Amino acid sequence: MNEDAMRRFPVPDYEDLPEDLRDRIDEETEEAGFTPNVFSAFAYKPSHFRAFFAYHDALVSDTPLAREEVEMIVVAVSGANDCLYCVVGHGALCRIYAGAPKLADQLATNHRQADVSDHHMAMLDFAVTLTESPEAVTDEDVQRLRDAGFSPEEVWDIASVAAFFNLSNRMATVADMRPNDEFYAMGRSD
Amino acid sequence: MNEDAMRRFPVPDYEDLPEDLRDRIDEETEEAGFTPNVFSAFAYKPSHFRAFFAYHDALVSDTPLAREEVEMIVVAVSGANDCLYCVVGHGALCRIYAGAPKLADQLATNHRQADVSDHHMAMLDFAVTLTESPEAVTDEDVQRLRDAGFSPEEVWDIASVAAFFNLSNRMATVADMRPNDEFYAMGRSD
Amino acid sequence: MNEDAMRRFPVPDYEDLPEDLRDRIDEETEEAGFTPNVFSAFAYKPSHFRAFFAYHDALVSDTPLAREEVEMIVVAVSGANDCLYCVVGHGALCRIYAGAPKLADQLATNHRQADVSDHHMAMLDFAVTLTESPEAVTDEDVQRLRDAGFSPEEVWDIASVAAFFNLSNRMATVADMRPNDEFYAMGRSD
Amino acid sequence: MNEDAMRRFPVPDYEDLPEDLRDRIDEETEEAGFTPNVFSAFAYKPSHFRAFFAYHDALVSDTPLAREEVEMIVVAVSGANDCLYCVVGHGALCRIYAGAPKLADQLATNHRQADVSDHHMAMLDFAVTLTESPEAVTDEDVQRLRDAGFSPEEVWDIASVAAFFNLSNRMATVADMRPNDEFYAMGRSD
Amino acid sequence: MNEDAMRRFPVPDYEDLPEDLRDRIDEETEEAGFTPNVFSAFAYKPSHFRAFFAYHDALVSDTPLAREEVEMIVVAVSGANDCLYCVVGHGALCRIYAGAPKLADQLATNHRQADVSDHHMAMLDFAVTLTESPEAVTDEDVQRLRDAGFSPEEVWDIASVAAFFNLSNRMATVADMRPNDEFYAMGRSD
Amino acid sequence: MNEDAMRRFPVPDYEDLPEDLRDRIDEETEEAGFTPNVFSAFAYKPSHFRAFFAYHDALVSDTPLAREEVEMIVVAVSGANDCLYCVVGHGALCRIYAGAPKLADQLATNHRQADVSDHHMAMLDFAVTLTESPEAVTDEDVQRLRDAGFSPEEVWDIASVAAFFNLSNRMATVADMRPNDEFYAMGRSD
Repeated sequence: MNEDAMRRFPVPDYEDLPEDLRDRIDEETEEAGFTPNVFSAFAYKPSHFRAFFAYHDALVSDTPLAREEVEMIVVAVSGANDCLYCVVGHGALCRIYAGAPKLADQLATNHRQADVSDHHMAMLDFAVTLTESPEAVTDEDVQRLRDAGFSPEEVWDIASVAAFFNLSNRMATVADMRPNDEFYAMGRSD
Repeated sequence: MNEDAMRRFPVPDYEDLPEDLRDRIDEETEEAGFTPNVFSAFAYKPSHFRAFFAYHDALVSDTPLAREEVEMIVVAVSGANDCLYCVVGHGALCRIYAGAPKLADQLATNHRQADVSDHHMAMLDFAVTLTESPEAVTDEDVQRLRDAGFSPEEVWDIASVAAFFNLSNRMATVADMRPNDEFYAMGRSD
Repeated sequence: MNEDAMRRFPVPDYEDLPEDLRDRIDEETEEAGFTPNVFSAFAYKPSHFRAFFAYHDALVSDTPLAREEVEMIVVAVSGANDCLYCVVGHGALCRIYAGAPKLADQLATNHRQADVSDHHMAMLDFAVTLTESPEAVTDEDVQRLRDAGFSPEEVWDIASVAAFFNLSNRMATVADMRPNDEFYAMGRSD
Repeated sequence: MNEDAMRRFPVPDYEDLPEDLRDRIDEETEEAGFTPNVFSAFAYKPSHFRAFFAYHDALVSDTPLAREEVEMIVVAVSGANDCLYCVVGHGALCRIYAGAPKLADQLATNHRQADVSDHHMAMLDFAVTLTESPEAVTDEDVQRLRDAGFSPEEVWDIASVAAFFNLSNRMATVADMRPNDEFYAMGRSD
Repeated sequence: MNEDAMRRFPVPDYEDLPEDLRDRIDEETEEAGFTPNVFSAFAYKPSHFRAFFAYHDALVSDTPLAREEVEMIVVAVSGANDCLYCVVGHGALCRIYAGAPKLADQLATNHRQADVSDHHMAMLDFAVTLTESPEAVTDEDVQRLRDAGFSPEEVWDIASVAAFFNLSNRMATVADMRPNDEFYAMGRSD
Repeated sequence: MNEDAMRRFPVPDYEDLPEDLRDRIDEETEEAGFTPNVFSAFAYKPSHFRAFFAYHDALVSDTPLAREEVEMIVVAVSGANDCLYCVVGHGALCRIYAGAPKLADQLATNHRQADVSDHHMAMLDFAVTLTESPEAVTDEDVQRLRDAGFSPEEVWDIASVAAFFNLSNRMATVADMRPNDEFYAMGRSD
């Protein structure tokens, strides 16, 4: 694991980790070809590692949202929160899942200028509003999502992804997690 | 379970829930004397129920922070995010765990005016800054916590509690979760 | 009078006050069963004491607004300004005048989630907008109040209450006025 | 009285006003050579007229602050709140009392660029902070004023003037009070 | 040239300037009767002097907008950016070109309260939005300008003037450019 | 030239452009291997095309700042203003001039987390503050740049680059200029 995975807390040694963490890290490393630094960073506190990735897994596996939709939300929210790790790491996933090499840079910079459908723009508007002004979300905001064709469960899930990355963005920034070099370039060719 | 636990999504019937959810809800109901509405609300989506409470449990059970410190952070963060359910629900817990009937109202309104030690004021300043301006957290902010006597693990945990309630606050507001009547008055006498 | 009525200016001795201030303080003390700290605090400067309470008295005595409506506005405005004294002190009055034990906590946290009629929500939206963005109040905002059924005089009075507590909140925060212990718990049972 | 003194409420007829209001208006008219529109506007509600000007009179007559200092605070606060009536009306007073034809435009635009002493800059910084972020005023802000040479009573009075114009600015903007033509040009020559 | 034209950079000697700068300065001085300080200030760096005034000249000479419309935009934008030099300097030009002695103070303080037509209010709303929230400008904002009767080229030019003064305001504030005394009073009589 | 260079104004035909614009476009196209869309977009109004690029050229050719420093400022400022065209287009230039494939994504997302020296961090802090809060730039901000080793002329130039891109960002967003596909990927390998 990368010692420079984050800069404000020490990264533990792989050998010292509980077996279930090592298994998950092995699996991710095999799949990605490298260990994404968020795994090395959260290993600092195994109980949080387990909780964080379990929540993440629920969000991406038990949802009518397509995976590319989830990643679009993540990148727009992380851009609004100015979170380096999540913009770069999930920017790579967004490019890959959406098969759209330019999409992540558009979403991270200003989702209003992104090449997305009206359906997806409504989803992103909602996620960014919930990020920037949670106190001001009203029935009208929820209704706008429903009018754009999202089911109640999809509304819940869009909110959940946005909310979870309001957690993730804050942890990544506090710890100064560093995106792996690989993430910057992944998925940039058609 | 209270049908009015939240106003923007339907509350499921207790009988229709998976057994592990019913068990957890029974346990909470027995302990509190009523079912806190956040359990009824998250039951809308069992996979999220499990992930949400597992993360919460890790935060309060595996930490050098005292439970009253955790609740102080929760109330200050939820006040900054204007989240009704969390201010009222965790306000009750804060009063009870801290044995301080006035503390929650102070923290929810303006943590700067709360009757807390300098040590705790540093903790709350950090949590509120992370909530309101996550992008601007710097080495100096982290150092200020260390100077106030918090260990690295405590810094991580303070950040984690603040981050998690940035998730919770957004879900509670989107769903318009309603605090149980009991929470408003609990812990208000010395 | 409580020496700790405020923390950034000295509280004068009751015996040293002009007679009209002592009379007013006696009256308030008899009515409330204790001396609300705002009276002890403003006694620091008798000419301001007189002006402050005369304005306050005009607002609550010469208006078609019900007293509970006045207190609802006060709590929502004071919540928006994060003012401890006014949220707690007028929270008590709001609970009592409205006969609604939960209302003040809802208004102070997020008026958008409060259990109020559409008529009162329009009133509160206006008061909070005037508090947070006075420069942006337009004909449309005023018209919305008229459409919600408020007379021109009521519009003036809603604005006046909101404006006056933008004064009060600032004085209470600068002086670090402390809510009396009694206020925290008053009016919390049905 | 000018029918166009304000645009969102009707201006009453002078003849219909209570005698004490007519007396005050006569006095002001004689002194200024015209009736400042704020008097015509507040006459809409006589009880508020009395309270408003009584508070104002206390602020300018019972204070160790020089009148020009009071007007400097008023203009900086009103500029921060984008209030047309108060910037123009009190801009005139500021120019006259300070004998400084350029000062009001500087204060209304950006007090940081105004030609004032360090002593007065501290006073203005405090007044503008209290206007824009009342919740964030701390012991340090008050201490900075004390270090700049202001007595405790002067601190109270600086805060009181700033607080009162946070009331005035909101009333003037809600009512769309119009500055008299005379105010725009008064005091502009040395 | 005025040595006090700006306070954070040295003002060069007229004699040391390249001939084209001297010519332009002579011309402006002859026209205005004094050397506007922005010319003395930008002479600090001749290549920027040339570029800055060339852009400015293009904006005012090649446009279907009336010169008074250009100056109205400049004053509203500069007011939003709290820029002393531009509010005072262009305030004078605005008064003169529009033949409206009160207009500049209204626009600099709060364009929403200015005595302008609906057509011009739409123009000013757009310019101020572009100044304060450039990222949030959408098709609807542009359409509103078109609906208010502005041609596509006028939309481009309104945006260009607003954008250019977002440059100017920042240079003037960084350099602490001082408005010439003459500007404060120019154009104030009908 | 790309018809889709911008979406809110028509892109003119190359053949219809004045000769000096065609020459400049030819030159840029030869150098880059494609026509950067900002040239096609500004060709909408030739007088502005000339002024815009003349200012730009002065900024990059007459300065002690290294070109990579200029591009670092541009990307940080454009990220703060959420400007798609400038983040992507100048992100490419930043990567190339700095020989740093990851730098632009870091600067655009959150300059505080970028891999830059303290010297450059001071430069970027200044540029972003000037972008977000121009009214609040003070002597201390300028002194901090001087303390970080920047000469007065470099301070002027840092401010000028930041100011100019506050113009550019607004024009690019209003016109909805689209980054050329090439920019997204350029300079991403070491």
